[in-house]
Amino acid sequence: MSTNAFTSAVFPLQTMDVPGGTETVLPGGRHLFGLLPAAFAGVHRIGVIGWGPQGRAQACNLRDSLAGTGITVTVGLRPGSASAADARAHGFTEHDGTLGDWLAVTAESDLVILLIADAALAAHHEKIFGALRPGAAIGLSHGFLLGHLRATGGEFPAGHDVIAVCPKGMGDSVRRLYQQGVSVNGAGINASFAVHADHSGRAVDLALGWSVALGAPYTFRTTLDSEYLSDIVGERAILLGAVHGLVESLYSHYRLAGDDPVTAYERSCEAITGPIRATISRSGLDAVREQLDGPGRDTFDRAYTAAYLPARELIAEIYDEVADGTELRSVILADRRLADRPMSRISGSPMWAAGEAVRAQRAGRQAAAEPFTAGLFVATMMAQVDEFAERGHPWSEIVNESIIEAVDSLLPYMHARDVAYMVDNCSRTARLGARRWGPRFQAAYEQIAFPAAAGPADSELLRAFTGHPVHQALAEAAKLRPSVDIHLT
Amino acid sequence: MSTNAFTSAVFPLQTMDVPGGTETVLPGGRHLFGLLPAAFAGVHRIGVIGWGPQGRAQACNLRDSLAGTGITVTVGLRPGSASAADARAHGFTEHDGTLGDWLAVTAESDLVILLIADAALAAHHEKIFGALRPGAAIGLSHGFLLGHLRATGGEFPAGHDVIAVCPKGMGDSVRRLYQQGVSVNGAGINASFAVHADHSGRAVDLALGWSVALGAPYTFRTTLDSEYLSDIVGERAILLGAVHGLVESLYSHYRLAGDDPVTAYERSCEAITGPIRATISRSGLDAVREQLDGPGRDTFDRAYTAAYLPARELIAEIYDEVADGTELRSVILADRRLADRPMSRISGSPMWAAGEAVRAQRAGRQAAAEPFTAGLFVATMMAQVDEFAERGHPWSEIVNESIIEAVDSLLPYMHARDVAYMVDNCSRTARLGARRWGPRFQAAYEQIAFPAAAGPADSELLRAFTGHPVHQALAEAAKLRPSVDIHLT
Repeated sequence: MSTNAFTSAVFPLQTMDVPGGTETVLPGGRHLFGLLPAAFAGVHRIGVIGWGPQGRAQACNLRDSLAGTGITVTVGLRPGSASAADARAHGFTEHDGTLGDWLAVTAESDLVILLIADAALAAHHEKIFGALRPGAAIGLSHGFLLGHLRATGGEFPAGHDVIAVCPKGMGDSVRRLYQQGVSVNGAGINASFAVHADHSGRAVDLALGWSVALGAPYTFRTTLDSEYLSDIVGERAILLGAVHGLVESLYSHYRLAGDDPVTAYERSCEAITGPIRATISRSGLDAVREQLDGPGRDTFDRAYTAAYLPARELIAEIYDEVADGTELRSVILADRRLADRPMSRISGSPMWAAGEAVRAQRAGRQAAAEPFTAGLFVATMMAQVDEFAERGHPWSEIVNESIIEAVDSLLPYMHARDVAYMVDNCSRTARLGARRWGPRFQAAYEQIAFPAAAGPADSELLRAFTGHPVHQALAEAAKLRPSVDIHLT
Repeated sequence: MSTNAFTSAVFPLQTMDVPGGTETVLPGGRHLFGLLPAAFAGVHRIGVIGWGPQGRAQACNLRDSLAGTGITVTVGLRPGSASAADARAHGFTEHDGTLGDWLAVTAESDLVILLIADAALAAHHEKIFGALRPGAAIGLSHGFLLGHLRATGGEFPAGHDVIAVCPKGMGDSVRRLYQQGVSVNGAGINASFAVHADHSGRAVDLALGWSVALGAPYTFRTTLDSEYLSDIVGERAILLGAVHGLVESLYSHYRLAGDDPVTAYERSCEAITGPIRATISRSGLDAVREQLDGPGRDTFDRAYTAAYLPARELIAEIYDEVADGTELRSVILADRRLADRPMSRISGSPMWAAGEAVRAQRAGRQAAAEPFTAGLFVATMMAQVDEFAERGHPWSEIVNESIIEAVDSLLPYMHARDVAYMVDNCSRTARLGARRWGPRFQAAYEQIAFPAAAGPADSELLRAFTGHPVHQALAEAAKLRPSVDIHLT
């Protein structure tokens, strides 16, 4: 992986301590909006192509942040797109020229941000490239297209900046936290950026401006490759797939131990999306264990050390398959197979009915930080941290893709509704991946971790956890965290 | 798929009615052993390369069937192979020239049967091809090598017969039933054969002789492609992966409904490996439903129609990934990753401890054909039958790879021990595939089928089942079944 130090001619940067060195970051905030015209110098029109959750959030945030600068944000949709009505409802209209045909919008924009679905990007990128005006910048929000071009022998067109800004949270949270940021400066979703081609010599500042305008509390550098791998693996592991497998297995586990459905839901899903999530978000991973009493800590330790290795093994398998391209081939095969029917339901099992009851009576109760649940969850998170560290990802990427995105963006959605609400508001690639890998985690917990947790804790694995450098990296990142949680109703 | 009619200059063939036409089959039996010298004309030495479960079973059966003919069966192993001691214990020794180095044995054999593991075959086939004597026949027991050669641009060497005989059961059952066949003529495991290259003009009879000598009750024709697809998909679906996912999900289901561990095991695993298996083996799939009383049949119907579509969807996904090559890439990646550590355990969950108790007290009890369990199991089997039929496989292959191999070879092993005993006595490719897909089936039953089974049965799916042409195909195949079950202790 390339170094992730960088300089900016526009924004004040900061150096953050991370294990083994430092990383450059840009702390964000609305006080920087005055610098946006300098960052976007030469850009008069921004075209946002696509209106999924990311397209909607980014178009709205960019428009609001750039209001008064003279820079226009226009949404481009395919002819006959079913999304046009929603775009109009959000203020993008043909009437004022901020809603149009995707190729026409591409042709008139100085920065073209490609936020259509992966399959559409694979099918239509050449058409879009062909419509670009000379020198227009190409913007991406993840590395999928690079992987696809590599696999098919294609290339990005020469003579254009190719940059990426990748919010580490689902589109809906990118918009909600931005809106909360009106009252709390800095509320938002962290983002990574990558400069894949710097034709203008100004690509870094253009990317940083884009990220600041989205409301990112802080922005760190990565590469398209590194972003792609951590993004696709992370959503299959702790962000979506693993947490789904975990709560399903835990719910059955507590039910079999004699709990009624509501209690079993509280001890599995509610414990994770409530107290455990909040503790990690505010005080870090080690605080989850430290807050437990003696017997609770022993239970945590046994659960942690029983789950770490099976989870690590699965995450290594996912990483191998994503890096090899196998995982993306399976997504393409699924897209073909599912062309005519909906994706399978994932929230039909009894636990999600119990979840409705739990939410209905939530006001009067406070879920406990179940030590068994906590040990399994933290172990899986640490397994992903270690796998990413071993594969050479920068620490900002590791903590954002393994921890912060989970506790500050995704889990609040599962807390407010259920697993389908969380998973199915993500990209199609993520939705398919969570369905592929969630059951593997469930089986690993049930068949390997639960039986092993009956035995004593492994002291070596525990020492590796308590003395782990991730705690420092997460504490540094927490200093840049705004003092506001996402608010969902 | 090519037609599977064929003629023989040596063996008396039979025409079997199947849906939409007929298929040619060779009914086997010890009374045909006198024809083996004619089938093996020109073959003086048979080299069996490799000593896994199939290598051991085939080498022993061939040697015993060819005793007195002057045809020698020799086992070839890699230098330093850990299997040499077991080969000697089964009567293959350096002393009498029936055990030797794999390349030396290859060089002196007229028929070289390649039964080393898939990964070894991928790595070393060129070396083996280079050692063949002119005109020697190449024998395979599944289509893996063809798939590998296609993927890597390789070819079988010209000037050799390339034939396959593929027993539709695990190696251990190929040997055990052969030995039982000493007292009951015809006991054995059915086999398919394929002629990929017929240099000698005698390849069909050579393959048929090989199959008769293995003890196959009947032998049908397929192609290497068709064999490969149905073999790899089948073991991931009803043969290993799906049945494992099904019994895990059913055990939890019955436990949650209030059953004690022993009862839950009896209603899930024991019901399948005991009465359901026996009924299908003796009387066919429709008999399972017909033997139920009114309420039982209603339960069966709801379970059947709730499980059929989710199972079908998963089997279509598996089929796509196997046909695309994606599944084999994942096996190769897993082989690399697991080079230094054992594969994960699959029999650690509580149900298998309950299984020990059930087996210990089996003498005094008779498990019932649980209608809920039966509906789910038969639906999954039918989903595989329909997927294979839609993809154009011959009916003999469909019923053997989806039904007969399950009830007459594999499930008796799960009945005698547990799931690991069944899965981990199969090929490494099968073991990895069962671990990949079993959890997907478990999740599909738990999250989709169980909730749906609370509703009414789908009458259209039921009509498709009761009037399905597979019942005729299975009844025809049953006429060729010997009157002996595999005996395991």
